[in-house]
Amino acid sequence: MARLSSAVPSLAADEAGPPARARILAAALAEFAEQGFAGARVDAIAERAGINKRMLYVYVGNKEALWLAVLEGAYAAMRAEERALNTLHLSPLQGMEALVRFNFRYHVQHPEFITLLNDENLQGGRNVARSDAVQDIYSPLLALIGDLLGRGQAAGVFRRDVDARQLYISIAGLGYFYCSNRHTLSSIFAVALDTPAALRAREDHVVSMVLGYLRP
Amino acid sequence: MARLSSAVPSLAADEAGPPARARILAAALAEFAEQGFAGARVDAIAERAGINKRMLYVYVGNKEALWLAVLEGAYAAMRAEERALNTLHLSPLQGMEALVRFNFRYHVQHPEFITLLNDENLQGGRNVARSDAVQDIYSPLLALIGDLLGRGQAAGVFRRDVDARQLYISIAGLGYFYCSNRHTLSSIFAVALDTPAALRAREDHVVSMVLGYLRP
Repeated sequence: MARLSSAVPSLAADEAGPPARARILAAALAEFAEQGFAGARVDAIAERAGINKRMLYVYVGNKEALWLAVLEGAYAAMRAEERALNTLHLSPLQGMEALVRFNFRYHVQHPEFITLLNDENLQGGRNVARSDAVQDIYSPLLALIGDLLGRGQAAGVFRRDVDARQLYISIAGLGYFYCSNRHTLSSIFAVALDTPAALRAREDHVVSMVLGYLRP
Repeated sequence: MARLSSAVPSLAADEAGPPARARILAAALAEFAEQGFAGARVDAIAERAGINKRMLYVYVGNKEALWLAVLEGAYAAMRAEERALNTLHLSPLQGMEALVRFNFRYHVQHPEFITLLNDENLQGGRNVARSDAVQDIYSPLLALIGDLLGRGQAAGVFRRDVDARQLYISIAGLGYFYCSNRHTLSSIFAVALDTPAALRAREDHVVSMVLGYLRP
């Protein structure tokens, strides 16, 4: 492994386009999102990335390692955008509303994120359980929500009996479920759920629900 | 088809145990819940039901027809229990709390329901879209929620700007997502989500969230 790893920098320098590892992960994300974990082939990922399979193993690893790297990358990408909301500099109400709207829109705009999480849960979460990174990705989020709740409680605009983790699971679930189950929901209620008007109405409902709950 | 269908009553009378169609659907539910739609085999369903494959086609139909019948049965079973809550005879607050607690517990206790809905959505909802039954199964639910909301608004205990369908999607999503994504959620937050204490805490949070939102 050490010998192979030492080959990486010079190879990366030789490659055109984005660094090889980033290219492999983008290719893996596309393949996994289309085929799921079970259906995806490492050969197809190597081909999409324009890299030979041996070097793909050197850069990232086997199919499980590729999957976990893609999953961690998806979590990190969402969290990076969430951080960019800069809620620390917004009022508690504005910050919470921004967080809820962002979260809903992210689920709408990133079906591949839902596909990955769904597939990982169908696998019993066996890959994410091996991750050293995900807890570090999520603990700042709980701190961020804790900051909003604490400032809102001090200002008298939020109730006091709120668990930050439960609240985040709820915020995520209110958007995720609408997107993941839109086909069955639109059949049982005989309405289109993915029109711009329907998505706006849902986003406003989720905001009302969270902020309505948080009133003292 | 007419000739084959006319054979059904006499055969059913000959069978031991529950009527053949019910036995087939129970076998199909077990097979689909374990294998998913793609992995399930009609031969295995016939074997589980103790019936020959030709008669299985007579009673229910092909794999798609089996799947849709199982899915409609799952929806109807949940709705029947929901109806038995008899919310029309409870106060608006008690009725809404009963509905929310029931819904959460149902998702916890019926992983096969989540598996079926998940799989159907992965198929783009193509089977449920052919159902004549599901809208009739769900319209009484919207009427029931409308009754609770109307009585609660008249009594001044519920806010007035609530859409019954959005609210139901939210109630369902708050439980469904917690169950469907429990593996990834427990990894990213480093907590067990399926202990009795964790499930109680989640159920209470969901009740607080819905009733907190509904305050005038």
